[in-house]
Amino acid sequence: MTADSGAVRIGLLGCGTVGQSVVRWLDEGGATIERASGHRLEVGPILVRDAARPRPGVDPALLTTDPARVLDDPDVSVIVEVMGGVQPTLDYLRRALERGVSVVTANKQLMARHGPELFDVAQASGAELRFEASVCAAIPVIKVLRESLLAAEVTAVTGIVNGTTNFILTEMARVGLGYEEALARAQELGYAEADPTDDVGGADAAAKMAILSSLAFHSRVGIDDVPYEGIDDLQPEDLAQAADLGFVVKLLGVARSQAGGISVRVYPGLVSRGHRLAAIGGPDNAVLLESPTTGELMLVGPGAGGDATASAVVADILSVLGTHQGSFLHNALADSGRPLMPPDEVTSAFYVRLSVADRPGVLAKVASIVADEGLSIRTVVQSGTGDEARLVLVLHEGRERQMKAALARVSEMDEVRGEPVVLRVLGTGEGEP
Amino acid sequence: MTADSGAVRIGLLGCGTVGQSVVRWLDEGGATIERASGHRLEVGPILVRDAARPRPGVDPALLTTDPARVLDDPDVSVIVEVMGGVQPTLDYLRRALERGVSVVTANKQLMARHGPELFDVAQASGAELRFEASVCAAIPVIKVLRESLLAAEVTAVTGIVNGTTNFILTEMARVGLGYEEALARAQELGYAEADPTDDVGGADAAAKMAILSSLAFHSRVGIDDVPYEGIDDLQPEDLAQAADLGFVVKLLGVARSQAGGISVRVYPGLVSRGHRLAAIGGPDNAVLLESPTTGELMLVGPGAGGDATASAVVADILSVLGTHQGSFLHNALADSGRPLMPPDEVTSAFYVRLSVADRPGVLAKVASIVADEGLSIRTVVQSGTGDEARLVLVLHEGRERQMKAALARVSEMDEVRGEPVVLRVLGTGEGEP
Repeated sequence: MTADSGAVRIGLLGCGTVGQSVVRWLDEGGATIERASGHRLEVGPILVRDAARPRPGVDPALLTTDPARVLDDPDVSVIVEVMGGVQPTLDYLRRALERGVSVVTANKQLMARHGPELFDVAQASGAELRFEASVCAAIPVIKVLRESLLAAEVTAVTGIVNGTTNFILTEMARVGLGYEEALARAQELGYAEADPTDDVGGADAAAKMAILSSLAFHSRVGIDDVPYEGIDDLQPEDLAQAADLGFVVKLLGVARSQAGGISVRVYPGLVSRGHRLAAIGGPDNAVLLESPTTGELMLVGPGAGGDATASAVVADILSVLGTHQGSFLHNALADSGRPLMPPDEVTSAFYVRLSVADRPGVLAKVASIVADEGLSIRTVVQSGTGDEARLVLVLHEGRERQMKAALARVSEMDEVRGEPVVLRVLGTGEGEP
Repeated sequence: MTADSGAVRIGLLGCGTVGQSVVRWLDEGGATIERASGHRLEVGPILVRDAARPRPGVDPALLTTDPARVLDDPDVSVIVEVMGGVQPTLDYLRRALERGVSVVTANKQLMARHGPELFDVAQASGAELRFEASVCAAIPVIKVLRESLLAAEVTAVTGIVNGTTNFILTEMARVGLGYEEALARAQELGYAEADPTDDVGGADAAAKMAILSSLAFHSRVGIDDVPYEGIDDLQPEDLAQAADLGFVVKLLGVARSQAGGISVRVYPGLVSRGHRLAAIGGPDNAVLLESPTTGELMLVGPGAGGDATASAVVADILSVLGTHQGSFLHNALADSGRPLMPPDEVTSAFYVRLSVADRPGVLAKVASIVADEGLSIRTVVQSGTGDEARLVLVLHEGRERQMKAALARVSEMDEVRGEPVVLRVLGTGEGEP
């Protein structure tokens, strides 16, 4: 393999869902990455178990079953580890780091069990070791703990860090499914693996909490230091009882640093409905970081998925390589970049309130004008009587100019008093508000 | 002033609430910062308007009214700008950046109006310009956009980026206050300034959205490109009507990148109750970042406050200086750091469900055992009759060993059938769950 001169070669260990997503991203996003970071990235050798298996979008010539072809390639600048497992992965990463090659890994078991020794090796050689993708996929909680909160005293990390169990518990609470049914549904939708033991039993969350609490408290917390309980023993009657008492049940990672020391645990816990974490539903993850200086910061997002995990891998690669941010921002901000849309072409759904005289046919007239301008009505509420009546419309998404044109005509109706009130609407499930 | 050899000197422009908080943090947190980052930071000259005014925790000898003493000090490595305003601040920062001195600023008006030209200067001299504190205080949204999502195609940024208006709207909806009353309450509590025009009128949010959308879309969006409307014209009847229709009203920053171009706007909008942003109440801020690859990431936290803003400033200083993260993590993770608490000493509130025979005195016996072990009862629910009765207790915060001791004794009662079910409780407002 000949290196593109000036390109930065990225070796991969593993090429499953996340690996393929990384390759696709580096290929398709190459121009964006180069413009933003100043680096031209090139996918180098990829270690796989079976080089004959086709992988969409991956050049078969890059595949190898020989670890040395990745680990000892002198042109590889960064090695991305997405093969999983503890051995031989640990040996591979030690070998790369010893040679001074920086490593980006998505492997939470490895980091929770052997993070400290890998950092020893990295420190000795000056290589970098990054692992954003190992916890909560694209949610940048590692970066925030390592960088934004580096100097803050973090006193608590509370998280919903397993999407499988959060989906199951959400379904159990929402539609009253039993545990087995909810698990089956999660498996159907790809939110749970065929063997869900690590997720539902709490071990996956425990590994993530070991990593997060180590960083948050600047203390070594190994995976064996985190007692965990899963959701597989939860009784439906406790979920129902919890709901009656104003709680929802979540699988929680709870880490505290207090006078007596630190504690890190994973358990299904009752969360008051008013609590920030109570609203985190479906397969989402959320991590709440508390510090006396910053208050409560919460990060929310999908905690799994090939593309989301690959996003964290790519961000880590760019962090390792360093980017001349000034140059990026200079370019990004000095050029006009993408054009601004004319304000009248911007779309949203609309709320419109009219004061009307309650005469026969008013609604029909308004509806006809609205339709004539190409807008459609989602909800109408008419209230009051006589000259004091009120007509409220919620319109489906449309352009500003359509709304303005409709309102100008509506305002001219004899039955309409004063100025219409217009507010835009977000979250009708129609895209742009 | 003699430089501590090996220390990194930080000059300040301005010493109001945020500036004093930065000084206090650099002083009190010095040891933590040095251990975590490898840098010993020293507060250098501080430009103020009135050097005679006492500032708690700030050495008066550091204060100067002469800008040159900060801007031209050859020992100053980073200048922190917390004086606000557009001029003479812009000139000062140009001068520092031209000399190659990196700048950390909390000034959103300056960045929204003159960010691009400051980046020009920074690029020419190789200095760094960081501005996390200019948007949403300690919420690390700038870092996430600049670094974690650098290579992702961000298609939408939707935010509640003004805490004053969010507090006012929350109070109006929650307790039915009128706008004037809610504003007065916000002012009492320090969530609104004496002159709230920039906040309630939407200009503050527009400046933040200009900065965020420039970074998100790699495009130049100036403050004048962002049309904005405030909340001062909102009618109580529209809030009530919105509530009836299943919406809450929020002051939204809405930025989209779509086929026709980008659009960035600020307006009071209706948000469906099921939408992530609907749950963001009080003075909190939240920013939702959407990309096809990462899905929806949301960052939530306090958007203002001296300490929270100072936290972002300190994080930016450390980013400018660079930290040998490997070394930090090596030290943090290889040492044991803070001790783990014995698991039985960890505290939480508890939910306990018992199957009991419904005989007179059962609850009294259980309550007496619980009290005897030093735990106290928050809620009791008894249901069912005869041998199928159920007793559910929610206990105030206590230690694991107290709970275990109480349950061991309760389990031995004749009236109790089977094993008690215990779940821990988060969010009772008692601290650790």
